[in-house]
Amino acid sequence: MAKAASAVKSEKFATEIQRVSKSDFSKTAIDTLAVEEPLEIRIGFYENNKQIHKAISITMRTPGNDFELAVGFLFTEGILKSKNQIEHIKHCGRFPNNQNTVRIDLSPVTEINLKKLERNFYTTSSCGVCGKSSIEALTTGAKPIEQSDFPQVSAEIIHELPEKLRQSQLVFDETGGLHAAALFDNLGNLIELREDVGRHNAVDKLIGRQFLADKIPLVSKILFLSGRASFELIQKAVMVQIPIICAVGAPSSLAVEAAHSFNITLLGFVRDNRFNIYTGSERIKVLSSKFQIK
Amino acid sequence: MAKAASAVKSEKFATEIQRVSKSDFSKTAIDTLAVEEPLEIRIGFYENNKQIHKAISITMRTPGNDFELAVGFLFTEGILKSKNQIEHIKHCGRFPNNQNTVRIDLSPVTEINLKKLERNFYTTSSCGVCGKSSIEALTTGAKPIEQSDFPQVSAEIIHELPEKLRQSQLVFDETGGLHAAALFDNLGNLIELREDVGRHNAVDKLIGRQFLADKIPLVSKILFLSGRASFELIQKAVMVQIPIICAVGAPSSLAVEAAHSFNITLLGFVRDNRFNIYTGSERIKVLSSKFQIK
Repeated sequence: MAKAASAVKSEKFATEIQRVSKSDFSKTAIDTLAVEEPLEIRIGFYENNKQIHKAISITMRTPGNDFELAVGFLFTEGILKSKNQIEHIKHCGRFPNNQNTVRIDLSPVTEINLKKLERNFYTTSSCGVCGKSSIEALTTGAKPIEQSDFPQVSAEIIHELPEKLRQSQLVFDETGGLHAAALFDNLGNLIELREDVGRHNAVDKLIGRQFLADKIPLVSKILFLSGRASFELIQKAVMVQIPIICAVGAPSSLAVEAAHSFNITLLGFVRDNRFNIYTGSERIKVLSSKFQIK
Repeated sequence: MAKAASAVKSEKFATEIQRVSKSDFSKTAIDTLAVEEPLEIRIGFYENNKQIHKAISITMRTPGNDFELAVGFLFTEGILKSKNQIEHIKHCGRFPNNQNTVRIDLSPVTEINLKKLERNFYTTSSCGVCGKSSIEALTTGAKPIEQSDFPQVSAEIIHELPEKLRQSQLVFDETGGLHAAALFDNLGNLIELREDVGRHNAVDKLIGRQFLADKIPLVSKILFLSGRASFELIQKAVMVQIPIICAVGAPSSLAVEAAHSFNITLLGFVRDNRFNIYTGSERIKVLSSKFQIK
């Protein structure tokens, strides 16, 4: 087998494989893989007038849109608040061709809440470690979504989203190995799509893109996820105030709880002209609905 | 919508939803969700004859088999080496009914490599952050798998594994929301199965179980994954020296590279009576194979 270059920047990589099936036994073929490489996210910030560099996170991601990924991650973690806190974003590292480290240098006036970086350890939580404390931790950085000015989205528009996503998911078609996150407007028009081996990275890239374009909060938008909906993904959506989330797969219990707490409409199993409404049914217009659950 | 209890111990949770489809419009129904709750993993260790407690990780997991999860995580991260390093494992936390913290107290003679806990930051890597350095980091804790005494597994046995897994995946059947990791012997007999909302957790639970039963290294075994194969999962398999990995989904580029480096047989798209061999074809017996790739 040929080896992938270590600092490869492409999203896909071809390799020789052996295909085995019951009918035609075995033959060699060329298969296209989704590229997975580590990305280290570093921040530069000032403490007592001195600039400090700190590695914040390392994530296994598909190369491409790395600045968006880094910015989206830092914003949804509550570390970055606004675009003007950023002085520079650059790929850095000891070797010029190595694109696997991104450093975001913050302006001297930016105050960094280093505790946020450790917020996953619930040492100060009032109830210990639990789903409720995870949701409570979110409330310090985000508020529930208001719905007064959001027009209902018809079920017909939702039914069409999976096919629209599939048609735009170019790398997945070849590799079968990428998660996608897409942003639609409330008429079902695709605004942006990002793909990655990690589903949280796809969402961070999508959000980072909107953050850099000064488009947050994402009012009246629909977030579409190619897989399942976990708490972590709802958390990211809360931070950008997305009112509707559609997932092709199942949501977890905590995803449903978080969506409920932050007044997000959460739809699961959105495929084959059907879907389940888990929370926030008032934003979805269903033709013969006899009643709505809250 | 009813709310899930915060410290719920069950693997699944029923909630009221609204089902929408083109044919029968909308109706309320009861849906079963896979439970997702945080688990904080803490270790107790000795430094200068004084016991110190430290939170190592927090993971969003499906409750159940928490000790296995914690042990499997610490072992595959290279922190825990052998079972006799463990003095106690217990659920702990301020509230008796909160089962979301596990503490592993290590014996006084156990030396802890705290640097391992931070190994994901490549500050000392010779080539910067890259796939190669990720693989190199692994070589400090594990060696490539030897194959001399491993009998070939026939393609027929591999073809049967997905259905065997599906029949045993009880919670997935109801929720559609869980990843599974299963251990088979080289005749295709199911040894153990674990399910979780996080695929890495399912593998940690499976490995933790084997660790506590003193069954590592897992020679002559097959690891079966219900989803895609990422680097992280290959890394865990390397630590327990599993020779064959089968994934229902696609592998990533770095998963294939790591499998190649550690002499693991990696099969992808294992479903519907077919599969692809990415690495290590010499362990698979294919009837009319004209030649084998290395």
